[in-house]
Amino acid sequence: MAGGYMSMARSRNDLIQVDTRMYMRDEVLNLAEKMVDLLNALILKAEKNIRTIIPAYTHLRQAQPTTAAHWLLAYFDSFLRDLTRLLEFYERIDYCPLGAAAVSGTTLPIKRDVPARLLGFKGIQENTLDVSSSRGEFEAELLSILSLISIHLSRISEELIIWSTSEFGFIELGEEVTFESSLMPQKRNPDPLEIIRAKSGQIIGNLINILMVLKALPMGYNRDTQECKRPLITSVNEVKDLIESLKRILLTVRFNEEEILRKIKVDELTATDLAEYLAIKHKLPFRKAYRIVAKAVNLTREENSIRGRVSQIATIIHQELGIPLSEIKNVLDLERSIRKRDHAGGPSPKEVNRMILNRKKKLLTIKKRIKTLKKRNEHIYLSLREKARNLIMEGDVELRY
Amino acid sequence: MAGGYMSMARSRNDLIQVDTRMYMRDEVLNLAEKMVDLLNALILKAEKNIRTIIPAYTHLRQAQPTTAAHWLLAYFDSFLRDLTRLLEFYERIDYCPLGAAAVSGTTLPIKRDVPARLLGFKGIQENTLDVSSSRGEFEAELLSILSLISIHLSRISEELIIWSTSEFGFIELGEEVTFESSLMPQKRNPDPLEIIRAKSGQIIGNLINILMVLKALPMGYNRDTQECKRPLITSVNEVKDLIESLKRILLTVRFNEEEILRKIKVDELTATDLAEYLAIKHKLPFRKAYRIVAKAVNLTREENSIRGRVSQIATIIHQELGIPLSEIKNVLDLERSIRKRDHAGGPSPKEVNRMILNRKKKLLTIKKRIKTLKKRNEHIYLSLREKARNLIMEGDVELRY
Amino acid sequence: MAGGYMSMARSRNDLIQVDTRMYMRDEVLNLAEKMVDLLNALILKAEKNIRTIIPAYTHLRQAQPTTAAHWLLAYFDSFLRDLTRLLEFYERIDYCPLGAAAVSGTTLPIKRDVPARLLGFKGIQENTLDVSSSRGEFEAELLSILSLISIHLSRISEELIIWSTSEFGFIELGEEVTFESSLMPQKRNPDPLEIIRAKSGQIIGNLINILMVLKALPMGYNRDTQECKRPLITSVNEVKDLIESLKRILLTVRFNEEEILRKIKVDELTATDLAEYLAIKHKLPFRKAYRIVAKAVNLTREENSIRGRVSQIATIIHQELGIPLSEIKNVLDLERSIRKRDHAGGPSPKEVNRMILNRKKKLLTIKKRIKTLKKRNEHIYLSLREKARNLIMEGDVELRY
Amino acid sequence: MAGGYMSMARSRNDLIQVDTRMYMRDEVLNLAEKMVDLLNALILKAEKNIRTIIPAYTHLRQAQPTTAAHWLLAYFDSFLRDLTRLLEFYERIDYCPLGAAAVSGTTLPIKRDVPARLLGFKGIQENTLDVSSSRGEFEAELLSILSLISIHLSRISEELIIWSTSEFGFIELGEEVTFESSLMPQKRNPDPLEIIRAKSGQIIGNLINILMVLKALPMGYNRDTQECKRPLITSVNEVKDLIESLKRILLTVRFNEEEILRKIKVDELTATDLAEYLAIKHKLPFRKAYRIVAKAVNLTREENSIRGRVSQIATIIHQELGIPLSEIKNVLDLERSIRKRDHAGGPSPKEVNRMILNRKKKLLTIKKRIKTLKKRNEHIYLSLREKARNLIMEGDVELRY
Repeated sequence: MAGGYMSMARSRNDLIQVDTRMYMRDEVLNLAEKMVDLLNALILKAEKNIRTIIPAYTHLRQAQPTTAAHWLLAYFDSFLRDLTRLLEFYERIDYCPLGAAAVSGTTLPIKRDVPARLLGFKGIQENTLDVSSSRGEFEAELLSILSLISIHLSRISEELIIWSTSEFGFIELGEEVTFESSLMPQKRNPDPLEIIRAKSGQIIGNLINILMVLKALPMGYNRDTQECKRPLITSVNEVKDLIESLKRILLTVRFNEEEILRKIKVDELTATDLAEYLAIKHKLPFRKAYRIVAKAVNLTREENSIRGRVSQIATIIHQELGIPLSEIKNVLDLERSIRKRDHAGGPSPKEVNRMILNRKKKLLTIKKRIKTLKKRNEHIYLSLREKARNLIMEGDVELRY
Repeated sequence: MAGGYMSMARSRNDLIQVDTRMYMRDEVLNLAEKMVDLLNALILKAEKNIRTIIPAYTHLRQAQPTTAAHWLLAYFDSFLRDLTRLLEFYERIDYCPLGAAAVSGTTLPIKRDVPARLLGFKGIQENTLDVSSSRGEFEAELLSILSLISIHLSRISEELIIWSTSEFGFIELGEEVTFESSLMPQKRNPDPLEIIRAKSGQIIGNLINILMVLKALPMGYNRDTQECKRPLITSVNEVKDLIESLKRILLTVRFNEEEILRKIKVDELTATDLAEYLAIKHKLPFRKAYRIVAKAVNLTREENSIRGRVSQIATIIHQELGIPLSEIKNVLDLERSIRKRDHAGGPSPKEVNRMILNRKKKLLTIKKRIKTLKKRNEHIYLSLREKARNLIMEGDVELRY
Repeated sequence: MAGGYMSMARSRNDLIQVDTRMYMRDEVLNLAEKMVDLLNALILKAEKNIRTIIPAYTHLRQAQPTTAAHWLLAYFDSFLRDLTRLLEFYERIDYCPLGAAAVSGTTLPIKRDVPARLLGFKGIQENTLDVSSSRGEFEAELLSILSLISIHLSRISEELIIWSTSEFGFIELGEEVTFESSLMPQKRNPDPLEIIRAKSGQIIGNLINILMVLKALPMGYNRDTQECKRPLITSVNEVKDLIESLKRILLTVRFNEEEILRKIKVDELTATDLAEYLAIKHKLPFRKAYRIVAKAVNLTREENSIRGRVSQIATIIHQELGIPLSEIKNVLDLERSIRKRDHAGGPSPKEVNRMILNRKKKLLTIKKRIKTLKKRNEHIYLSLREKARNLIMEGDVELRY
Repeated sequence: MAGGYMSMARSRNDLIQVDTRMYMRDEVLNLAEKMVDLLNALILKAEKNIRTIIPAYTHLRQAQPTTAAHWLLAYFDSFLRDLTRLLEFYERIDYCPLGAAAVSGTTLPIKRDVPARLLGFKGIQENTLDVSSSRGEFEAELLSILSLISIHLSRISEELIIWSTSEFGFIELGEEVTFESSLMPQKRNPDPLEIIRAKSGQIIGNLINILMVLKALPMGYNRDTQECKRPLITSVNEVKDLIESLKRILLTVRFNEEEILRKIKVDELTATDLAEYLAIKHKLPFRKAYRIVAKAVNLTREENSIRGRVSQIATIIHQELGIPLSEIKNVLDLERSIRKRDHAGGPSPKEVNRMILNRKKKLLTIKKRIKTLKKRNEHIYLSLREKARNLIMEGDVELRY
């Protein structure tokens, strides 16, 4: 007979609130799992490219030497921060909204901790007016995090698109992640990367959607907030796909070491090293060292072969400062340059190896945490289903709260 | 002589990065302090209005009875979450970026933990490429939090604007927070509240600004990210002012209890109570109870006096179910309705008092945490200034890292 | 045999470009028709409410007297500007993109004006690189216009929601456009208006989506621009529905003239009139007149009956300036106030009637223009279908361009 | 004595409305002039590069051959549409708002066409409620147009940044528009282009700012709309600077024809031509021709010299279809490919020359129109200043309306 009580102490909105909370709780864990997969792929690629020299860029101009591993680990660190944001968010939403009974609670003698426990929440969201008004707030927060993720995705996609042009030629993408042109017989296009790059628009558009809905909305439930559901759900689904898609593409990336070395202007890329070297070893004020090197680099721009140019630069410096040619050439060497960058966070193989080990450990801890949470939730849902089945079998649904 | 070394191992961007990080660190604490002040004001107002009955709204229609204290505490809880977001953000950015030396570190033998410690950071942001590329990411994250704060500010402002119209007449705003019309002799306008409501536009516009700048930007430093400074700094300043402004306005708010009671349709506001009562005490299925009450409410809409209408409703229910008139009238009573909503998070004075105590304790802990952090940073800055002065006095600046 | 030529001189993107252009051309006309319907409904309502007095608001405080017709015509004018924007946009996109052949045209001897004419365009979009790169630009422009429309829709919805509260009580909404509460037996909620208000979020989010996709995209076709389709199509469909929905709701609106008059503070609403009258008729500098009236209004705030208050104000003014009481009371009269506002664009019945006639004529011209364009396009599509059928029947598809 | 009447029939907001309208009117013309300058620069550059071959891109992969002139004219056409948008907007705002007298007009016998004529407007904005509520609408519309302009600016900047990398090497930027690195002696960076690219963020952020302010704002003046001023004025100033900056940069751009030809894979770029040729001249179905060419292109990827590869492709096609080698080589020739693209809008020098002539004429007409409007407005302002001076000299200010 208790069926008659089923719709007490709750409005339609109360049910949607708890559904959305549980949806977000589950999907944050799913997103986190996808992120872990992507982070693993980045580590995997990094381990294979610890000595693959690439130029590091500022202003999209070659700036200093680094390695592909160092570059991959940089994306690792920014995606790891995104993952941390997701997990902090999880903790913030793990409170049960049930019992607001539309807006200011109920005169019924309910115990709000009972359904909270049954649904696996770590506590209740207390103030009933706040419950009713906070719809949209958590959606906006999750969308902010997804926006950061999508921005990071758009940046790595842009780089991979530029690096895989014939003009750069730094990387090759697997055939399975490029599409052929319908008109031009010679072309394969990086459509999946372009889609990833473009999707940040949708996610950030969805964030604006939700913020715009919430703006100046009076407290208590307003129908407006139902407009937060579509942007939430489409964004969650899109971002899961985008992370998966980038992971797959990354695994096919092959660095063209030869082509990269051909494009690197060694002498220029290590010009900073030379200035630093002159300053430290030969006690020149840095500004003076900088100007001497800049002059040598500029005077030799006509020379096309790297070997020739290194010689010319060395000669100029030698004439000006009397430093042995071999010493200068040594400083301009790319591998030396990478090796010397062995301070914390630098691209030297030693430091990169240390970072890889350290990140692997961090990832393992996070993975375990996600697994524990997922298991707990799955267990809760199974036991709930069990309880519901029993109630129905007994032919009588009893009011539990 | 060491002055010549001052510009080594760092580009202009490295300096701006560390400046921005320290700026954000300081300003997050300043924002947090402003939030604490606002939260204190909400508590203060709540303590004085534990028994001030107001209608709780859904769809901007009177839904159920609650109290002004309960309403103020709801805003407390949402602003408290914003404060928590700020403090979590603080922990994420408390890492020193120095040593990226533009983008892939340096061949100089630097020790990155030394300046980090000197500047009071709890560690370093390791990967140098990540350092250089993460400009904008933290700004975007802070702007997301400020966007949520500004949304909450816009919502309470909207409510106060509506409630202070002559048509509602629920509250009165202090003269010092309203402006007179230049043309119409009779008017005072709530300009400061309208400005708070409108400013969410600027903050969210600034968030979009930063996200748009970052979209598809290749890794390494790009000049584009300098465009994150203006939206960051203007937003921080605006939001501090907005929080302060709302706090001041709130302290002047006076609830017109008489006018509110005149506007409340008691019989309607407690209609849910009656349906719940019939279901629980008289064992009616809730849907049936709901329909009986709905019918009684609808049949009596012509009656204008509250007393008269309560009588009419009671009579109808009495005729249908035989329940004593006094029992029904009692259930329709507003104060009883509030008192009975004594479950966790409900508006009953007892529960509201418990929440106030609990929130005060939370606030105290946070306040201490903010104070500790501010003191630590101030100490660091003082000792840095001391060191800088000594270096200059010695007539010789030595390279420390 | 010509089937083999069907895929020449065009890529997939060329086809989608022309499809999208024709889609926008058709849908702009559909949107325009919906707007015409809405504008008609506004006129219809205005004609019935030429003498329905309502307060005009500034800062959501009663400012001056006006009429419901005047208010409805104000929305008419802003929606009419939106309609004009749509029709100007139509002219800008009525150019055929076919023939770009992906990006820089073709070596085939094509005549681009032939398909343009066949598809009913008034010309071709010339530069083939521009054709290929302009995908997204027109979508963004249409979304800008839809954003303005959705903003206007959100504003009128907000007003109708506030005016239909029990506290205002200015209007009543038809039962068919309000929903009942699932929990609270006494409530009917304005869900459709809340949805209209909220949807501006989706439209503006979609605008951001497209702008974000386009930002910093190199010229030529990029797959990214396919991400403009979803936001375009969903926005067009949503806005058509929203306009239709508002029209339906508007037609059910009933103004509660009695309740409005009860809420109007006559004496305050016509305070400006009195100041103006004193300035003009009694040669007082306006600032002085303003201060005298402001003082009188403030001194009499305690008086609750309108009649009593008008008397008190009149007495004060009379004592100060010696002007006959009846003269002052006459100036404070609401209907006189409306009648005197008979300059261009004012709310006096005479001027409102003139505006209605004028707007009806404008609307008729626009309606004819839309009809002509729709007919032309429908004729084109029918004749195209005919030609396609004939080609297929002949068993041989011939290359036409 | 009439000074006392100066503040009648207008509130502060009425004055700001007319100021803003005149500000927008003037600034739209200033923006239009800047656009004309930019368009002239594009034409100038195009005239000098009618035969400068560059690859046209899709998906940032070389797609088909075109010329620098064709590419410059594509940007010309998209900026020309923006200019048209500006001028249409000018027509929409050229109506005088004066006389709304806050919101519902005035009981004074004003003639609204008098000040409108004095201030040089072509008419009045009629409905006074609409006047008062439309604040923000025109600002949002102008910002939409500025957003499109800024998107176009960001796109050409992105291309110029990519094309001026050492990896592409297509163009060289003048020294005066690149900055040197503070740390790296060898680098010059395209900061001004990066700033242009990034600024789209600010403009679009400002658009969102205004739309967010307007969302759900009830009719009549609300203080919120003052928040539209800052984003309006900063955007207008920024965009004028950005257009000017791009124009200056463009004038310094030098195309490295040799480097471009070295990077073009002739045989691939004209692969579509060959497929088209086989289809038309040798009656192959296009899909078949496409597949034959694709196979030949793929089989010869190992060959590095262009001459060698063209030979190999020709041989394969010759063996398969018996077409003379010289015929095939001729079709693969770049200059032939450009010359044959002589349909409307194609890159052939003949067609490009026609387009340049045509655009010059269009530009001249627009230039005249802008000049006429500016002169008219300047004349109006001068005569107003004259009138004001006379009034003050007479020692008596008379009320004119």
